Amino acid sequence: MSYPSQVAEALDSLQRRFALLADLTQAASLLSWDRHTYLPSGAGVTRGRQSAALDAICHEKLSDPRIGEWLSRLEDAALSAEDARLVDLCRRRHDRAVRLPAALVQDLADARSLAQEAWLDARRHNEFGRFAPSLQRMFELRREQAEQLGYAEHPYDALHDEYEAGSTAARVTSLFAELRPALVSLVGSLAAGTAGNADAPLHGEFDPRRQEEFVTGEVKRFGYDFERGRLDPTVHPFAQAMGRNDVRITTRYRADYLSTGIFATFHEAGHGLFEQGLLEELDRSPLGDAVSLGVHESQSRMWENLVGRSLPFWRGAYPRLQAHFPQALAGVDVESFYRAVNYVQPSFVRVEADEVTYNLHVIARFELELAMLDGDLPAEELPEAWNAKYRELLGITPPDALLGCLQDVHWSIGLIGYFPTYTLGNLMSVQLFEAARAAIPDLDALIEAGEHRPLLDWLGEQIHRQGSRYRPDELLERATGSVLDAAPYLRYLNSKFRGIARAEAPD
Amino acid sequence: MSYPSQVAEALDSLQRRFALLADLTQAASLLSWDRHTYLPSGAGVTRGRQSAALDAICHEKLSDPRIGEWLSRLEDAALSAEDARLVDLCRRRHDRAVRLPAALVQDLADARSLAQEAWLDARRHNEFGRFAPSLQRMFELRREQAEQLGYAEHPYDALHDEYEAGSTAARVTSLFAELRPALVSLVGSLAAGTAGNADAPLHGEFDPRRQEEFVTGEVKRFGYDFERGRLDPTVHPFAQAMGRNDVRITTRYRADYLSTGIFATFHEAGHGLFEQGLLEELDRSPLGDAVSLGVHESQSRMWENLVGRSLPFWRGAYPRLQAHFPQALAGVDVESFYRAVNYVQPSFVRVEADEVTYNLHVIARFELELAMLDGDLPAEELPEAWNAKYRELLGITPPDALLGCLQDVHWSIGLIGYFPTYTLGNLMSVQLFEAARAAIPDLDALIEAGEHRPLLDWLGEQIHRQGSRYRPDELLERATGSVLDAAPYLRYLNSKFRGIARAEAPD
Repeated sequence: MSYPSQVAEALDSLQRRFALLADLTQAASLLSWDRHTYLPSGAGVTRGRQSAALDAICHEKLSDPRIGEWLSRLEDAALSAEDARLVDLCRRRHDRAVRLPAALVQDLADARSLAQEAWLDARRHNEFGRFAPSLQRMFELRREQAEQLGYAEHPYDALHDEYEAGSTAARVTSLFAELRPALVSLVGSLAAGTAGNADAPLHGEFDPRRQEEFVTGEVKRFGYDFERGRLDPTVHPFAQAMGRNDVRITTRYRADYLSTGIFATFHEAGHGLFEQGLLEELDRSPLGDAVSLGVHESQSRMWENLVGRSLPFWRGAYPRLQAHFPQALAGVDVESFYRAVNYVQPSFVRVEADEVTYNLHVIARFELELAMLDGDLPAEELPEAWNAKYRELLGITPPDALLGCLQDVHWSIGLIGYFPTYTLGNLMSVQLFEAARAAIPDLDALIEAGEHRPLLDWLGEQIHRQGSRYRPDELLERATGSVLDAAPYLRYLNSKFRGIARAEAPD
Repeated sequence: MSYPSQVAEALDSLQRRFALLADLTQAASLLSWDRHTYLPSGAGVTRGRQSAALDAICHEKLSDPRIGEWLSRLEDAALSAEDARLVDLCRRRHDRAVRLPAALVQDLADARSLAQEAWLDARRHNEFGRFAPSLQRMFELRREQAEQLGYAEHPYDALHDEYEAGSTAARVTSLFAELRPALVSLVGSLAAGTAGNADAPLHGEFDPRRQEEFVTGEVKRFGYDFERGRLDPTVHPFAQAMGRNDVRITTRYRADYLSTGIFATFHEAGHGLFEQGLLEELDRSPLGDAVSLGVHESQSRMWENLVGRSLPFWRGAYPRLQAHFPQALAGVDVESFYRAVNYVQPSFVRVEADEVTYNLHVIARFELELAMLDGDLPAEELPEAWNAKYRELLGITPPDALLGCLQDVHWSIGLIGYFPTYTLGNLMSVQLFEAARAAIPDLDALIEAGEHRPLLDWLGEQIHRQGSRYRPDELLERATGSVLDAAPYLRYLNSKFRGIARAEAPD
């Protein structure tokens, strides 16, 4: 499309500014990756200052009034659909930045740095009190930020929207109202009928270096490209992209338990495949970015669960795993191993939870953060409220804060309104997988053969290469023909886990 | 000292701006460290863009006209000696930045990124032609930069001054005129009298992991703090500080040759000890920075050579080394090992050269870069000129570009005027070590016992904690009572190496 020169110039300036912002954001991302992998223990404060400096620069470049001028000129012009979408995306980011006073940005950066140190310190001492004041401050600052940003119904919406454009507390509440009772009921009936030691094959001695070899081989089969990525050990696994050519995943190996290393790696590889699959032509443009965290999570969950915890996958991969651990897995057949990795049991730690209980962990966090943001729950009372919520949803009481409200990094770095995207991603993952199954003949046989290319190509076409060209809800509807819906997910869980329970039941 | 409010405000603004610049420079340093350690192979171009973006931001913040206003106000005021020195240091950096047009800064950043890729590519193919055009361009841009910066005598001075404030091509030429004939003569007489296989003990099978264990233990004894540092493998060893609490050193292990891993690590640890020893109170201030590359190199060379290649050191450390390699070093006594690590022989690669030939490598580079900067030597003719210089100085001809003019990364990243600082550092290292010996009773016995604290404390007091409070020449004179002088260095080399040759000669 050919535009008048004033419009073309504004568009060019806008694109170049957001490309610069992409470069700077990627630099900031490296600082974050390094902090969680290789930063010397004595350099936490130093790194906090470096990150805060870069954040401030990004904020300055993003709130530049000239961006507002370019946007106004472009919003008055007739643009192609794609350029109009680009303008929308830039407007959204620019407005979020200009609505925040520089002092608040600085306060948030400082609070993030302090809270992260306090969280680590509290974990070291297993003492929530060391973290409580920083946490309280973080919620207050984010509440203030929500007021500055504005919202229609609830301050939570302003924060949640940052991670899942268009989603609201009301929408999440409504979806969770459908999930909550169904999940509590499913967990109850499964727990009653399941052998108490079904996960025994996962416990034993598993050399982390051999685990690394195995998962490296498997994520390569998924299509994860090590020339544009890395896999490193960390404490709290995550994926971090510094552009589509530098997509790093991290994982955690436990020498006495096999599940953590395998499924954390598969999960992060799912995120990594999304980032590596973004369209090269839209590199450094907001149009080329992954559209939302929920959509992102749909990809990690798909490779972790719908592929990685499926029977077809293990029929193919299990002999390879056994070759890595011939002694520990001797005498364990693939069906037993499949049951082990799908063992449902209420537990304390979200990232190690099974597919069924997982979303109850998320629901607990959503309800708690909503209360804290409303000021109904002071940070110092969080441990009690957390434990009460776990009793209510999962019937168990965390023995300490490490296994309770200190387990997640999120709130310490200001990620409030973020947790629900995990469950939104779970719902989407099943809707997308059903659509993929309809489009790809013999999907199960391909997965069993380790031929993941057709699935990755389908996801690339439907999701990865679309970047942010469509809103999350549009993207899902284009790919699946349906809007976000909890029913397919609940059907999937019921079918898979009641099936396992039936197979396991004594004749 | 209490200043009028306008002066105090200007000083505060200046300090805060340079603290921000320190944070941003440290972030840029992490990008560089990562590039040479863990960056995925496919992400070179991406990383180049991120670094260029940060460089541009730093240039923008450093050339800000407000800095000029603060400086003018401060330069008119009566300041303490320390504040006046701070103002000088800031003026120097600000002026260098404002004298460079933004377009040239961008061109240099782009050229650096391209030249580095081209250098890597040329090395992969062992084909200098792939690098020549980028190299030519780099010298042209740096020449242009020298013209913009200004100089009294020679454009080289403008570039060299960046690394060694106050030093000039004329001064280097004069020192090198004294060193050149003396070294050529010493190498000739040593080569004639030395057994041809004195370094045999260094060749064998040496598991890199055991090498890492050994050098980690030794640099800890030096005083290198792993809570504020790291040691990682790389291709071309370097040290990189992201503030005094995050000082990372890198090294390279060869499984078939012991010398590389040990002495590269000791060398980089020397740099690291300097950065870790900078004064905490002056953190993020130009006053607290290491003052020059020559002074920096005096520290790396001291730990590498004056400590690490000394007989007292190995009398203490050799049993520990033997314990790591009981088979490979069986039957090698400490005197033989000492002769092996001090084996003098003309060779192709600077970073692996012995103490005597090392400076001839530097002299060759200095003469060549001077000619290239003058336009007398086109880049495409470098390989021939390089080889001719090696024949002239060392009597050997590199067999290919990898072992010749492609071996160093420096010119590819624009470091022109940098090489002489290695030799300046060598000269200083001996002057400083003689002063330390005069100040510390029983220095040799302490080194043999692995008790390096007194030496490190002396260096800390005289050099590290002084940061940039004095100019390099002043600093040296305060610590040693002498100005920079080639004579002590030549005396040291003659005494040490003629001594080894005599001990080795048949009775």
